[in-house]
Amino acid sequence: MADTDPLIIFTPSGKRGRFPVGTPVLTAARQLGVDLDSVCGGRGICSKCQVAPAFGDFPKHGVTVADTALSEWNEVEARYDRVRGLKSGRRLGCQATIQGDVVIDVPPESQVHRQVVRKAASARPITMDPATRLVLVEVDEPDMHEPSGDLERVQAALKAQWEIEGVHASLPVLAKLQPALRKGEWKVSLALHRPANSEEFEILDIWPGFHEDGLFGLAIDLGSTTIAAHLCDLVTGEVRASSGLMNPQIRFGEDLMSRVSYAMMNPGGDAEMTAAVREAINTLAQEIADEAEINPSLIFETVFVCNPVMHHLLLGIDPVELGQAPFALATSGALTLPASGLDLTAINGQAQTYLLPCIAGHVGADAAAVALSERPDQSEDLVLIVDVGTNAEILLGNKEKVLACSSPTGPAFEGAQISAGQRAAPGAIERVEINPETKEPRFRVIGSELWSDDPGFAEATAVTGVTGICGSGIIEAVAEMRMAGLLDPSGLIGSAAQTSTARSEPEGRTHAYLIHDGTADGGPRITVTQGDIRAIQLAKSALYAGARLLMDQLEVDQVDRVVLAGAFGAHISPKHAMVLGMIPDAPLDKVTSAGNAAGHGARIALCNRAARQEIEEIVGHIHKVETAVEPRFQEHFVNANAIPHATDPFPELAKAAPLPKVSFGASGGGEAGGRRRRRARG
Amino acid sequence: MADTDPLIIFTPSGKRGRFPVGTPVLTAARQLGVDLDSVCGGRGICSKCQVAPAFGDFPKHGVTVADTALSEWNEVEARYDRVRGLKSGRRLGCQATIQGDVVIDVPPESQVHRQVVRKAASARPITMDPATRLVLVEVDEPDMHEPSGDLERVQAALKAQWEIEGVHASLPVLAKLQPALRKGEWKVSLALHRPANSEEFEILDIWPGFHEDGLFGLAIDLGSTTIAAHLCDLVTGEVRASSGLMNPQIRFGEDLMSRVSYAMMNPGGDAEMTAAVREAINTLAQEIADEAEINPSLIFETVFVCNPVMHHLLLGIDPVELGQAPFALATSGALTLPASGLDLTAINGQAQTYLLPCIAGHVGADAAAVALSERPDQSEDLVLIVDVGTNAEILLGNKEKVLACSSPTGPAFEGAQISAGQRAAPGAIERVEINPETKEPRFRVIGSELWSDDPGFAEATAVTGVTGICGSGIIEAVAEMRMAGLLDPSGLIGSAAQTSTARSEPEGRTHAYLIHDGTADGGPRITVTQGDIRAIQLAKSALYAGARLLMDQLEVDQVDRVVLAGAFGAHISPKHAMVLGMIPDAPLDKVTSAGNAAGHGARIALCNRAARQEIEEIVGHIHKVETAVEPRFQEHFVNANAIPHATDPFPELAKAAPLPKVSFGASGGGEAGGRRRRRARG
Repeated sequence: MADTDPLIIFTPSGKRGRFPVGTPVLTAARQLGVDLDSVCGGRGICSKCQVAPAFGDFPKHGVTVADTALSEWNEVEARYDRVRGLKSGRRLGCQATIQGDVVIDVPPESQVHRQVVRKAASARPITMDPATRLVLVEVDEPDMHEPSGDLERVQAALKAQWEIEGVHASLPVLAKLQPALRKGEWKVSLALHRPANSEEFEILDIWPGFHEDGLFGLAIDLGSTTIAAHLCDLVTGEVRASSGLMNPQIRFGEDLMSRVSYAMMNPGGDAEMTAAVREAINTLAQEIADEAEINPSLIFETVFVCNPVMHHLLLGIDPVELGQAPFALATSGALTLPASGLDLTAINGQAQTYLLPCIAGHVGADAAAVALSERPDQSEDLVLIVDVGTNAEILLGNKEKVLACSSPTGPAFEGAQISAGQRAAPGAIERVEINPETKEPRFRVIGSELWSDDPGFAEATAVTGVTGICGSGIIEAVAEMRMAGLLDPSGLIGSAAQTSTARSEPEGRTHAYLIHDGTADGGPRITVTQGDIRAIQLAKSALYAGARLLMDQLEVDQVDRVVLAGAFGAHISPKHAMVLGMIPDAPLDKVTSAGNAAGHGARIALCNRAARQEIEEIVGHIHKVETAVEPRFQEHFVNANAIPHATDPFPELAKAAPLPKVSFGASGGGEAGGRRRRRARG
Repeated sequence: MADTDPLIIFTPSGKRGRFPVGTPVLTAARQLGVDLDSVCGGRGICSKCQVAPAFGDFPKHGVTVADTALSEWNEVEARYDRVRGLKSGRRLGCQATIQGDVVIDVPPESQVHRQVVRKAASARPITMDPATRLVLVEVDEPDMHEPSGDLERVQAALKAQWEIEGVHASLPVLAKLQPALRKGEWKVSLALHRPANSEEFEILDIWPGFHEDGLFGLAIDLGSTTIAAHLCDLVTGEVRASSGLMNPQIRFGEDLMSRVSYAMMNPGGDAEMTAAVREAINTLAQEIADEAEINPSLIFETVFVCNPVMHHLLLGIDPVELGQAPFALATSGALTLPASGLDLTAINGQAQTYLLPCIAGHVGADAAAVALSERPDQSEDLVLIVDVGTNAEILLGNKEKVLACSSPTGPAFEGAQISAGQRAAPGAIERVEINPETKEPRFRVIGSELWSDDPGFAEATAVTGVTGICGSGIIEAVAEMRMAGLLDPSGLIGSAAQTSTARSEPEGRTHAYLIHDGTADGGPRITVTQGDIRAIQLAKSALYAGARLLMDQLEVDQVDRVVLAGAFGAHISPKHAMVLGMIPDAPLDKVTSAGNAAGHGARIALCNRAARQEIEEIVGHIHKVETAVEPRFQEHFVNANAIPHATDPFPELAKAAPLPKVSFGASGGGEAGGRRRRRARG
């Protein structure tokens, strides 16, 4: 390039260079290393290289751009505009050529490594660089006198046009190769997969000409109780649909250890559970594809995060070793596998599966995914991350050191083992408030923004009804009951006389609190029973004890911030969690929700291949603490059973059941805790 | 090692070094790079490291070896001897330690890269270095406080004990891993596979403790008409059984082009043929395992050589493109695939398949295998290699240049399309002689060493009978008929009057020659008909024309030597082949048989991983000549139709049908050719 050649300046990168008149903008971008996308390799087909040229004076850049700085709109652009529409002011980078000094803006959607907008406050943004990508190649026709296979000419084209080497094809792709090349007149689109830690590519699928229907991936959070999936567009990163269903393994046991027992007691029991969960994933994949109106055969990747028992059962490994010390995993490393090996028949037959690494026998790929989403190893301050599910995965640390453990909270936080419990779905009570004076409740259900005492509530919820109470709802209900004086610190529900409300009804030898009576409309009667309170107490004690155990290991009494994660992490009210004593003391404004951090971690691994290497490295540096054999865990667990509250409404009962030594408020001081809570409530 | 340390000298390598007293012989061998095998890594289990110490004076080596030069026979050796027997004079290299200067012989069977004895004269010996090998590892037990997966500890053990890295495990192996480790008390045997051109290993199977039952592989020559397989012991290289069966695709068409037509005319026809051949391979694998009395699940590798159409049909690729110019292969490169992808359910579920590369659309992996076996690219003199099957693969060249083509000979050489034809099996006539004076034939059948006029022939063949005539038999019969004056140069069978024998019987408008009449014993009447002669003429003309075409390309009129290969190559008499004009002129002592060179090439690739890289390289340097579009091929084909003979017994008929321009004897001179033939006959 000569000094007299036109100058091209790319924004926002600021990269600049001089190129001969007639150089396509895409060519200049590539030579300067500008992040400008292209799937078709500059053939004017894919429109991914759209750029926005700017005209006029640019004193900052020292150039004036004439309106003749780019070649005129050409036929390819005109046709593209006619057929699909080109946004005003946009040009195709592969068609527009440089005619004079010019400033070219690369809009975010044209960047190869575009970032996907983050949703949860603490979640990291996702940079698109998926393991499976789409490329178009133009392949040489066969020559009888220089014989070579069609695949070998595809490989040569990938090398010449995309600098991609080490490409393999499976038998099903080989079977499609020859017709696709001929139908596409020697232009084909390829779905190319490159596993983490590999220099090799595999062709997952092939289409004649330019493939317009996209590539998709599923990020799946495979929990003991629920299975949740996001369907992601692997080109844009957009979440096209999200869906979930109950884990059908529940019929073999509600918690992990009962499933391990089932496998131990029943020959072939592990295989039954494996078949059940794989079938459910197929159902989910089909449902989510239907919802997004895509063909499920366009799903080329699945990423799973799950706890170790689910991990083994998904893979078809008997989890028996996970049920007894030393809790040895069959494998702890990340895995890249053909999805067909998991019988995932609903999606593309060549689809690939990635499983994040496990941290230890009780701390699985779900905890790894939370670490990938929240990066405690990069935190300046000491962060406690709690991923609440049937097991709670707990991470504590900062950039010096990160510890992890898991705690068997059971499924109560997910609405299971609760008398009126249900999974978070429209109609489920998700928010509860109890007036401390009148002891009357009001609530909100999923699917409506209205409170139950708002005008129009009945109409707004007419379709769903009020069907039960989900995890976040029961937590709020119990905390509110305690603050309204309906519960004593030991968790005992007072009688109507003690609590001054008829909503405290006798139930057997104990009492229950009535939240909603829908029987008049044929709906259920929703109460919080003494059994429900006990289930929540057990769950929250386990959670709290796990967090305390890690704090003991780091020899700290408090943490700088708390991140609540989990399938319903987004819905837990931090205030109520602290009233309950689910989590250790922290300033309320330092308690944030990361939403479904494990699911977010799965999405990161789905959309960014480098993140797979990253998490494999992070996991190697997380120190595991085994709760099951740690005597202090039991001690913390027992001590955390009570429900602390600064202003105890039952001083006479409190004498019988003294406040536990270690619990929320006890260390921080009642008054301060009370103030924080009140402020948060206002 | 100090100068005063004992000296150890290994034979036959001559490698020597000094080691401290107490060093195990195996350790010394490893440090010196001596080729001494071990599967168990020195644990006294596998006995692969047997050595033969020598005692006494070794002036050549400058040492005297005392009988105390090695430690005494230890308990491990005593137990091994008791249980399995240790050959006299042998020690276990891992147990015997150096006590003084010593000379140690490594017997051939203890060498890692032992050579397998070659059978055919021209075939290369095979150096054992298979892609799948057996190793024993001792794995650390899990530690709850340093959690890691069992697989990760197996990987660490492989690295520490075998310097093997990059090891993966498939799901079925992962499912077996934990029970195997515990049952084997943390010692397991692994079948490790490392594909050609790869740095990665895959665990194909795992056994508790030391696996004694061996690993096996199948080298399969998948022909259009017959499928032949060798079952090889992947540790010793020994061929444990060989077997073959007819290719069931014959029902879709006898030759390749009729199978391609079948696929073109019948939707799903290619899939039918694919299913048929895969099923046959399963049958063959089961049969051959039964014959060798091994469990077929111990077969971990299959290597296939085949022509391009069979290659595509085996892989499940529609061969339609191979039926029309430019004869484009879907892929020409070598392939390593899971055998399960080919539905090879009879063998181990994790078994791997390797397909040699194809040279071009008509010159397949079978020709590549012949090249690997015969290495024309390393030949000093100009060698013509002819692999006779339903298609003939022809290679011509030397270390300067190698050309290849294929020629559509049809199945006549394999006994098909011959009136009394049959495949080479007990009872088939394989050798024929006709007395030129009496015109009486005599013959031999497969399964007996006796000629039909030897005493005891009837008894010797009582079980099999005389059932038909196989490929080599029909070639000899036709050549002998010509030399006995029963045929004219155009291939016409003379009448009884012309030939002075009642064995020339009228048959329709032509004549047939009676070789054997078994009707008295309920057997068949075996004649050579005029139709048989025509089929052989077409086949041999195609073969000859292909060879001539390559000679034209190299601008030569003769070759230095000829190698006959093919499933029945070992049985063709070179003399008869030249009488027939199957192959160009060459001194009779320069015509050798390589036996089943394609099958041998398959065995090489099965037993030696490096050979896989070798053949991929060789194939890249072979220049392909396409017979189908070369006008000179047709010309040579037509000219080669006659059956030349130096002493023409029918001079009056010869006038009507002049000798062809290009044919055996015509260039070398009738008299010289005749002498050679006579000398060879004596």
